[in-house]
Amino acid sequence: MPAVQHFHPGLDGVIACETSISYLDVENEEIVIRGYDLIELSRKVKYLDLVYLLMNEKLPTADERNRLEQELKKEYDVPEQVMSILKLLPSATDCMDALRSGISVLAGFDPELDNLSNAANRRKTIRLLAKIPSIVANSYHAIHQQELIPARQDLSYSANFLHMITGKEPSALEESAFDQTLMVYSEHEMPNSTFAARVIASTTADMYGALTGAIASLKGKLHGGANEAVMNMLLEAETPSGMEALILNKLKNKERIMGFGHRVYMKKMDPRAMLMKEALLKLIEEKGSRELYDMCIIGEEVMRREKGLYPNLDYYAAPVYYLLGIPIDLYTPIFLAARTIGICSHVIEQHDNNRLFRPRVNYLGPRGLHP
Amino acid sequence: MPAVQHFHPGLDGVIACETSISYLDVENEEIVIRGYDLIELSRKVKYLDLVYLLMNEKLPTADERNRLEQELKKEYDVPEQVMSILKLLPSATDCMDALRSGISVLAGFDPELDNLSNAANRRKTIRLLAKIPSIVANSYHAIHQQELIPARQDLSYSANFLHMITGKEPSALEESAFDQTLMVYSEHEMPNSTFAARVIASTTADMYGALTGAIASLKGKLHGGANEAVMNMLLEAETPSGMEALILNKLKNKERIMGFGHRVYMKKMDPRAMLMKEALLKLIEEKGSRELYDMCIIGEEVMRREKGLYPNLDYYAAPVYYLLGIPIDLYTPIFLAARTIGICSHVIEQHDNNRLFRPRVNYLGPRGLHP
Ligand SMILES: CC(C)(COP(=O)(O)OP(=O)(O)OC[C@H]1O[C@@H](n2cnc3c(N)ncnc32)[C@H](O)[C@@H]1OP(=O)(O)O)[C@@H](O)C(=O)NCCC(=O)NCCS
Ligand SMILES: CC(C)(COP(=O)(O)OP(=O)(O)OC[C@H]1O[C@@H](n2cnc3c(N)ncnc32)[C@H](O)[C@@H]1OP(=O)(O)O)[C@@H](O)C(=O)NCCC(=O)NCCS
Repeated sequence: MPAVQHFHPGLDGVIACETSISYLDVENEEIVIRGYDLIELSRKVKYLDLVYLLMNEKLPTADERNRLEQELKKEYDVPEQVMSILKLLPSATDCMDALRSGISVLAGFDPELDNLSNAANRRKTIRLLAKIPSIVANSYHAIHQQELIPARQDLSYSANFLHMITGKEPSALEESAFDQTLMVYSEHEMPNSTFAARVIASTTADMYGALTGAIASLKGKLHGGANEAVMNMLLEAETPSGMEALILNKLKNKERIMGFGHRVYMKKMDPRAMLMKEALLKLIEEKGSRELYDMCIIGEEVMRREKGLYPNLDYYAAPVYYLLGIPIDLYTPIFLAARTIGICSHVIEQHDNNRLFRPRVNYLGPRGLHP
Repeated sequence: MPAVQHFHPGLDGVIACETSISYLDVENEEIVIRGYDLIELSRKVKYLDLVYLLMNEKLPTADERNRLEQELKKEYDVPEQVMSILKLLPSATDCMDALRSGISVLAGFDPELDNLSNAANRRKTIRLLAKIPSIVANSYHAIHQQELIPARQDLSYSANFLHMITGKEPSALEESAFDQTLMVYSEHEMPNSTFAARVIASTTADMYGALTGAIASLKGKLHGGANEAVMNMLLEAETPSGMEALILNKLKNKERIMGFGHRVYMKKMDPRAMLMKEALLKLIEEKGSRELYDMCIIGEEVMRREKGLYPNLDYYAAPVYYLLGIPIDLYTPIFLAARTIGICSHVIEQHDNNRLFRPRVNYLGPRGLHP
């Protein structure tokens, strides 16, 4: 096979996979998920419908969705030892690292770990989706020496997830806002974490290993870690004028502003960010002060003016999570939990039609040395 | 930037990185490591010289090598909690999964985890190299409810590593054979695990996360997992004629034969395999029965005749580890331990000159659906 002659840093523009899961059609401003527009889906259906769609290539009937929810509820329990291990982590552990360790350890409890067939991979996906909310929420509680919160069978999947985080039963608006964040985070073509998972899966490594690698990737500030960085910036800024000053100052120091820019939509606003901006406004009406929203708007304006850059999803998801009472350290783990269905779908696709990822390099070092 | 139009499954032939660490010059049958030929190095120097070379872009003086060894010895201790966590893993846990969990947990104990500067990354590399032999060896002991074996300061780095695995002080021949396996496994351009680590590191995720992803990758049978699979095949075959029959039968069933083939050297023998074949002969003279060697030779002949495929490193490393008395489950973890210096060097290079990996896809699914 002929080598690709040109080096594209970061594989910018390089086609790494064939997929029928999703596609970013930037020209038509559509995030295609199994044929549907993600934004339209996020307005009209629920997170579990999207999970079903990603797994089964069609939207569920009400009955099918309920069955999926029941299947998940049966698998909520996380082995005792996993919880004990989370409690042994040092209190300074980052929640993404705790989640990575939790999923890595959980692998040893899956009876079908090494079975990479489509059917077994689908069953593992269900088990992961069922257990990950508890691992996300309780790793935070464990690290902070708080009591663990057990899953509640009487709440919906999303309400239970939020409840395990905050310890409070969410209002209808909170539940639906949270569910919508899970939808917009669920799948997004070939971002770094999904790519890392497929690269790993291509050695015929198992799904838990691939997901562990994806968690490691998502932690980085250029990727999922951005949502936490955005919230810390908003809190530091305190006021709209503070936000403007803070961003201008960071730009003067040649720092990157988290929550702006995107490899694929660099010169447009991320359609998911627009939906989250709406969700933020709705929450503000019920419970927030308008100042937080105004700060976001100022930030958006400053970045457009100064850099021609637009908000990405993380920019508006962060204040939504803040108003939902979620600890900042959990924003990225929640992103990962929501994206688990996307990542597992890609691992399944990779295992079903695999070739080992093994690229080459341009070597720039010395030659011809002898010891 | 223009898209690369042709899709290369597995990124075959695609240049993914620029590097001055290593390069497979297949035409000239040379594995270039910072300008030196890996095979020549493996005959003339020791593993720690190679570690020094990879970190410092030059071979050490005797003094510099001793200082490196002292630095490593100071960092041998693994936090108590990491060992406690390994003991909590279910007894069916794969040793690669245990290692992955061990490194993931260890992250929380590194005081410089989030400092990605070159200097801090180098210090983390030392800490990882120092602790990984103990995590590899003792995760096996922990899973098998055996007593953990503490590191011994009076042995060399490699002798101590082997001692922690077998509980016995190695002979000079055993020590040098083991050291040589670490050298040939130390670095090899852009295999899947190294690539996974660089992809992850490019989000500005930390070195432990990148290494965790690499461990997940290396477990797969198309990659590091092959050395364990080779040994299991040799044990199943029992005799040279059994080996021939077993391979022919697997080929008839369209199975892949582990230990053969390589993306880059598909039609040549891996130079590292030739060196390991020599090392195997030396060990056989001291302690083995010649039958094991004869089985390997028959396997090699059958594969050349039937498929035109040649052995890779894993094919001959496996029987060497067997004769060194190493449990089969540890072959791949040892590969990872040896490769840690290569992976960390690539993470450092990535962080020093970073761009996020974010490729695109060919979308093959449906379009235009509505909920
Ligand atoms: C997401 C991101 C990594 C995509 O970047 P990319 O395609 O690799 O683009 P590059 O890193 O090559 O950046 C291109 C240029 O835009 C600038 N730029 C990109 N995003 C920027 C940001 N958020 N703030 C300031 N400058 C930015 C870069 O500095 C670079 O400028 P230069 O050419 O003068 O050096 C980048 O936009 C970024 O770092 N954003 C902030 C992190 C974030 O929000 N991540 C979440 C993504 S969903
Ligand atoms: C290493 C490896 C994944 C490289 O593969 P690759 O470049 O992706 O090559 P492909 O998987 O596309 O294989 C090309 C062809 O050779 C065949 N082939 C490659 N390695 C083979 C093996 N070990 N046994 C039998 N057939 C093999 C494939 O079946 C394929 O045949 P096809 O075109 O008729 O389907 C492959 O050689 C392999 O699976 N080897 C065994 C595992 C191993 O030893 N890994 C350690 C590598 S250091």
